[in-house]
Amino acid sequence: MVMNRNILSRVRTFRAAVIIGLIGISAILIPVAIADEGMWTFDSPPLRQWKERYGFEPSQEWLDHIRLSTVRLSEGAGGGTGCIVSPDGLIMTNQHVGRGQVAKLSTGSTGSDAGRDLVRDGFYAPTREAELKCPDLEVNILFSYEDVTTRVRDAVSKAVDSSTASRLRREAMAVIERESVAATGLKSEVVTLYNGVEYWLYRFRRYTDVRLVFSPEEQIAYYGGDYDNFTYPRYCLDITFFRVYENGRPARMDHHLTWSEKGAGDGELVIVPGFPGSTARLLTVAQLEFQRQIGNGLQMDVWTSRRDALKEYGRRGDEQLRQSSATRLGLENSIKRLVGQQTGLQNQRIFQQKIDSEKRLRAAVAARPEWQREYGEAWTRIEKAYQDYPSMARRLAWSSLASTRLGTLASSFARYAEEIARPNEKRSEQFRDSRLESLRLSLLSRAPIYKEMEVALLAAWLRDARTALGSTDPFIKATIGSDDPQVFARSLISASKLHDIEFRQGLINGGPEAISRSDDPLIQLARRLEPTLRQLRDWQETNLLSIEAAAGEKIAEARFAVYGKTLYPDANFNLRITYGTVSGYEEDTTMVPYRTTFHGLLDRASGFGGKSPYQLPDRYLRLLSAPGSFDLATPLNFVYSADTIGGNSGSPVINRRGELVGINFDSNIQKLPNRYLYVDEAEGARAVGVHSLAITGALDKLYNAQPLVREILTTKAR
Amino acid sequence: MVMNRNILSRVRTFRAAVIIGLIGISAILIPVAIADEGMWTFDSPPLRQWKERYGFEPSQEWLDHIRLSTVRLSEGAGGGTGCIVSPDGLIMTNQHVGRGQVAKLSTGSTGSDAGRDLVRDGFYAPTREAELKCPDLEVNILFSYEDVTTRVRDAVSKAVDSSTASRLRREAMAVIERESVAATGLKSEVVTLYNGVEYWLYRFRRYTDVRLVFSPEEQIAYYGGDYDNFTYPRYCLDITFFRVYENGRPARMDHHLTWSEKGAGDGELVIVPGFPGSTARLLTVAQLEFQRQIGNGLQMDVWTSRRDALKEYGRRGDEQLRQSSATRLGLENSIKRLVGQQTGLQNQRIFQQKIDSEKRLRAAVAARPEWQREYGEAWTRIEKAYQDYPSMARRLAWSSLASTRLGTLASSFARYAEEIARPNEKRSEQFRDSRLESLRLSLLSRAPIYKEMEVALLAAWLRDARTALGSTDPFIKATIGSDDPQVFARSLISASKLHDIEFRQGLINGGPEAISRSDDPLIQLARRLEPTLRQLRDWQETNLLSIEAAAGEKIAEARFAVYGKTLYPDANFNLRITYGTVSGYEEDTTMVPYRTTFHGLLDRASGFGGKSPYQLPDRYLRLLSAPGSFDLATPLNFVYSADTIGGNSGSPVINRRGELVGINFDSNIQKLPNRYLYVDEAEGARAVGVHSLAITGALDKLYNAQPLVREILTTKAR
Repeated sequence: MVMNRNILSRVRTFRAAVIIGLIGISAILIPVAIADEGMWTFDSPPLRQWKERYGFEPSQEWLDHIRLSTVRLSEGAGGGTGCIVSPDGLIMTNQHVGRGQVAKLSTGSTGSDAGRDLVRDGFYAPTREAELKCPDLEVNILFSYEDVTTRVRDAVSKAVDSSTASRLRREAMAVIERESVAATGLKSEVVTLYNGVEYWLYRFRRYTDVRLVFSPEEQIAYYGGDYDNFTYPRYCLDITFFRVYENGRPARMDHHLTWSEKGAGDGELVIVPGFPGSTARLLTVAQLEFQRQIGNGLQMDVWTSRRDALKEYGRRGDEQLRQSSATRLGLENSIKRLVGQQTGLQNQRIFQQKIDSEKRLRAAVAARPEWQREYGEAWTRIEKAYQDYPSMARRLAWSSLASTRLGTLASSFARYAEEIARPNEKRSEQFRDSRLESLRLSLLSRAPIYKEMEVALLAAWLRDARTALGSTDPFIKATIGSDDPQVFARSLISASKLHDIEFRQGLINGGPEAISRSDDPLIQLARRLEPTLRQLRDWQETNLLSIEAAAGEKIAEARFAVYGKTLYPDANFNLRITYGTVSGYEEDTTMVPYRTTFHGLLDRASGFGGKSPYQLPDRYLRLLSAPGSFDLATPLNFVYSADTIGGNSGSPVINRRGELVGINFDSNIQKLPNRYLYVDEAEGARAVGVHSLAITGALDKLYNAQPLVREILTTKAR
Repeated sequence: MVMNRNILSRVRTFRAAVIIGLIGISAILIPVAIADEGMWTFDSPPLRQWKERYGFEPSQEWLDHIRLSTVRLSEGAGGGTGCIVSPDGLIMTNQHVGRGQVAKLSTGSTGSDAGRDLVRDGFYAPTREAELKCPDLEVNILFSYEDVTTRVRDAVSKAVDSSTASRLRREAMAVIERESVAATGLKSEVVTLYNGVEYWLYRFRRYTDVRLVFSPEEQIAYYGGDYDNFTYPRYCLDITFFRVYENGRPARMDHHLTWSEKGAGDGELVIVPGFPGSTARLLTVAQLEFQRQIGNGLQMDVWTSRRDALKEYGRRGDEQLRQSSATRLGLENSIKRLVGQQTGLQNQRIFQQKIDSEKRLRAAVAARPEWQREYGEAWTRIEKAYQDYPSMARRLAWSSLASTRLGTLASSFARYAEEIARPNEKRSEQFRDSRLESLRLSLLSRAPIYKEMEVALLAAWLRDARTALGSTDPFIKATIGSDDPQVFARSLISASKLHDIEFRQGLINGGPEAISRSDDPLIQLARRLEPTLRQLRDWQETNLLSIEAAAGEKIAEARFAVYGKTLYPDANFNLRITYGTVSGYEEDTTMVPYRTTFHGLLDRASGFGGKSPYQLPDRYLRLLSAPGSFDLATPLNFVYSADTIGGNSGSPVINRRGELVGINFDSNIQKLPNRYLYVDEAEGARAVGVHSLAITGALDKLYNAQPLVREILTTKAR
């Protein structure tokens, strides 16, 4: 499996030597956002770069239209981006973003519609009536935004230490949010940008009645499975359509994207708005050292443990495979990405860039006494905080019940009982009033829970946690102790009633009282654990997070002081605008084309003789013998140099006329280290999208979804 | 162009660390030929490996049939492999092997059939009469072989020093060859195997009346050009058909390969006979050090100089582009391969394997006094010889007129005049009686000579040689001195009559006398240069080659003494048999399929929007709109793990029933370092072939060459 990479690494070492020299030269320049870099906020789009590089000067109206046509989809902790593609609330996103809902709308092996597997078989509602209501999907549009930096900073200015500052900041943010909700009725969130240099109040128009309209067979949405994930050339129809409803009727939208007639073209500028989840480009060397030496390894252990448990469970049978595959695929995806990120950190050349840029900034700060006084200590404070972290990191990683759905619910209820009893300002972020509705939605999710899978996951988790932490660890003592993991997990899961939505509704209705009184063994366990977990969280908050936040803010300020506001903030699952060029690239001495076609899909399937994961769903297999009127040269996927990351899944790819030319769904492997730094497009880093012509072509000719195609294509009005 | 490799090298460094450990473990074992390794002689095929790995036990008759169905094609210094595919002398090889002949059969911009560009447009002779006679192509079949080791060794045994031994050996070989020719009338060559541990007399059935039957458009034979060269997945119809004639009629062949009905299948054992050109797997560390530090770099300089000159010339216009492209593509090919080889040497892990294996062998030798006495000095003798070589290597690389065709002819005549005057045994190898007929064939080649291109090439060569050697160098002083390269080259080339075949015939007829008296300025220059060049050759022979030969023989003997005859000899453009499995592999975290199809060709062409070098010839472009009865899922190329190298181009790929399932034409990039060592199939090293179904399918449906298809498919008799 791994051997072949080694020979390639050899082949490249030769050239790498040449490149290091070049990098050395560019590294002495002051860093500015060049190339197609940046995840920019809508209040500060890269107008200068667009004008200089592309002669593109959009109006404010153009920008507003794009913003109001882009949506955030969220479901529990996960989520992604989508866009509005008709005035009747039609939303397009990726199949892998909507997958959780599609899976939850499928049914198990019992009941009247037993065996309905919409993930495997796909789904299409030819009429509004046939659309399926999603159990717990939320859609948000960034309706307006407002700079509240001064208000937050003023509130914090009286703080004497960083822990107080952290608390005061949280309180001020909660107040602002509550006032906004009261004034506008809109969902309101204060978001932190530039590591705390700026705070903005974001107001969202929120939809919770979301229905499934269309989703293709997963085998075509995720063609090539984990093997082809993060690779290109690629052949995936990774799309799903939902519709948002208001008062039981399709929501009437003021803004939606119109469909480009030709789709993405070679060399074209594209704009990609979306909700990139998380980057860590402002991390200090000390923080990255921790990730490199400890953090990423721990994360890998945790994910691998869960992945292996799900794999093991899936081997029991087809139904178990179906139940476990959504979560497992998500984990495979995360693991592959983590490997890419870690590889970036372990590469001395990349890491040296970070060391050099930090050195430059610190030197510039040290050169001015007032800067040195204000910011000079920030780096050493972080370095010191991280000295004690390694010993706690393992406990923080493993002390959790969140590897199972029932465990997550139990923990949420246990914390809910404690947090809700406090005033809003004193609560942890996710328990503040502004978030409560979303929290309750997830607590009452109708998504099916598979108890046998829960047993398998909990048992494996506790077994591995005991190995990692040792049997004298407080979390282990409060859970399995020296018990058999299987026996322990089964006794808990089988006796718990948390799978029952009525039961959960009763707990919410009963409030903290009801939760404290509950004799549900999982809730009791979660409540027993709560003091230990709270202690860990508090330790982390006091000794690390609050210091990081304060010092990070100082460093971000220092960057502003030294370089001016030429930078963009780290991604944090809020709306950003990125851009790039549709273009192929060179790899392994050859060229990679800017797009693929359905011919390539058939070639890859034939090349593997239809072996998994390269088999074709029936309707695609038929194309081999009878393509009929479907043009196999229709573009399928394409690549572009936009600076995207996880969370940008489902982002519309838009041309300069504001038309949709494709939908973003992945990045290639060259781009993976971009969590920590922007990887230049000249290095072959590319985002991967589904071409708009593939979508309309397939819907029309392969799925006979003409009403859907008509709705997309004929509604031109803004 | 190069940047992207660097990011990938980073991605892989992470994993390489793991692998190094594994390699370290396997390296302590005694090296034996495991896996699908080895370019075996027909007198010693890997019967044990076949039986153990594949349960395959071919009869001697089977082996003879394969040998007698495989041919060597040669043209000047170049060549490749082919196979007989009908009893009427039909030969199949690669387009890139036959390309030189096809180019020579094309015409320039003047004359009655001006503009006929068979390389670009392809060629098909629907009747025997339409077949085109090749100017200077030779076809050889290894008819019989005989071990003459004792005779050669006996002749050498009286030698007192290595230079005498070298001369005695050459003389003995020439005598054996001459006797064989006299006795059998067959072309006879004594070949050196295992660095001189064995000598074999090979007798060839030789054909010089060879005619072109079919050649496709180069754009489909070499689809993707230099970019896709040495890569896979691949989409090339790299085939050409010739027919050998005897006495003006198609030669009646006793053996030919029959065509497999299904072609190559996944997981199947394949046997690949052919004439691998050159490997250097027995080189010592000192020799490889030289290649790594000096030799490969010099070779790169020389090739790059020529390539750039041809590129520059090709920019003058379409006709110039056509004239120069064959040679330029050959050079691009060589340069890309050299980069791969050098990269392998520069990789510390690969190089360490060589160091370790030499250390083991020397330790084993040192452990037995009689071995130490016999072989112990060999390595240090080579080390010493190489101490003085670097200072001469540059002169040897640049002191030559061979960068032009006229210069090559002039040098050959000048040497011919001197060598032919000596007795056969005293001549250099290529001027011995056994080789004279081939030499005269190349001296009288009818291939067109483009004088303007000759001027451009000679001028660039002399300019770069002067830069490399300095103006006081004897070669430079004897040629341009301080003249302007353009002026100097033009005056020589324009005044020379060597382009005229009558003139050349006159020189051959006139013998050494005529050549010495000739007032042709190029011949005069070549004669003036001869003493300098002979001095260089003699120095190299005395101080390096003869020492290397003697010491290499000792080392090879030592290997036999220590490990027994479990090894195969280095490739030297003689017939070998290799084998492997048809199978895909893993690369960059994803899977590469064992075969491609015509769908993939159309996908790649569409993906690049038809941009060069990915445009399609018209008949393929038509497939996009109207595939008609042609099945686009027909396999096109496929990969297998056979241990091949340059010279194996055109090798038949044969299944265990002896049927042809494809034709070899390339290797992927993972395999490039295999000049110096076998790269394991688990590392993704693969040979690349054209699938037999692609050949018959395309001939039938795309080229309407039904008579050719019938000839191939219906002649089942042995």
